[in-house]
Amino acid sequence: MSDHWLEALAWGDDGLLPAIAQDAADGSVLMVAWMNRDALAATVDRGEAVYWSRSRQRLWHKGEQSGHTQVVTEVRTDCDSDVILLRIEQRGGIACHTGRRSCFFRRLGDDGWADVDPVIRDPESIYG
Amino acid sequence: MSDHWLEALAWGDDGLLPAIAQDAADGSVLMVAWMNRDALAATVDRGEAVYWSRSRQRLWHKGEQSGHTQVVTEVRTDCDSDVILLRIEQRGGIACHTGRRSCFFRRLGDDGWADVDPVIRDPESIYG
Repeated sequence: MSDHWLEALAWGDDGLLPAIAQDAADGSVLMVAWMNRDALAATVDRGEAVYWSRSRQRLWHKGEQSGHTQVVTEVRTDCDSDVILLRIEQRGGIACHTGRRSCFFRRLGDDGWADVDPVIRDPESIYG
Repeated sequence: MSDHWLEALAWGDDGLLPAIAQDAADGSVLMVAWMNRDALAATVDRGEAVYWSRSRQRLWHKGEQSGHTQVVTEVRTDCDSDVILLRIEQRGGIACHTGRRSCFFRRLGDDGWADVDPVIRDPESIYG
């Protein structure tokens, strides 16, 4: 496969696009991170999610530290080709650095944001 | 409810955050658009998704033209408070301006991107 498919995407001025990781089994949205061309190429090549860490300014193989890698079963983009959607199998069942399954654990209620999903594993025991 | 919850989000330098619309019934990711504070406040106030149109530089009540409004059943944010996740009921069953259910109809395969989901309704008949 040539790299033509990479250039078919509408990369932002900063060379990045948001990427959604969705649980392939039940559709849960687990996290959103960013990708540049190298990250998406590495993701496809490796079959596991590789993002671009904006804070560390380097490629980030998700799970490299925690072991919570994401096996990619499908890659999609949208009608504007400016968002990436990964369908994944989440190793360890934990996508969030807080030790929760999904990063989207904060729900808006009458009293503002509330954390509504349980911590599955203490981050201390994940990241030491 | 005060506006404190709005300021608790980590709005970008441009005052925007990406917002994912997810089908509340089956978890399908239907679209991603952008919100500013006014858009999110209007969404919560109205109970229907209101985005910020970057191309038109104005609030965009999704479905205002097509009738394909999105009834919001839940609003979430993530651990970094920089992405919004809406769980919605999609009126008309069509979120995409191409007449498809979801905007994420392009799947990466061995030959690059392929459109894999059907057009439910001709956009001409939706937008005239």
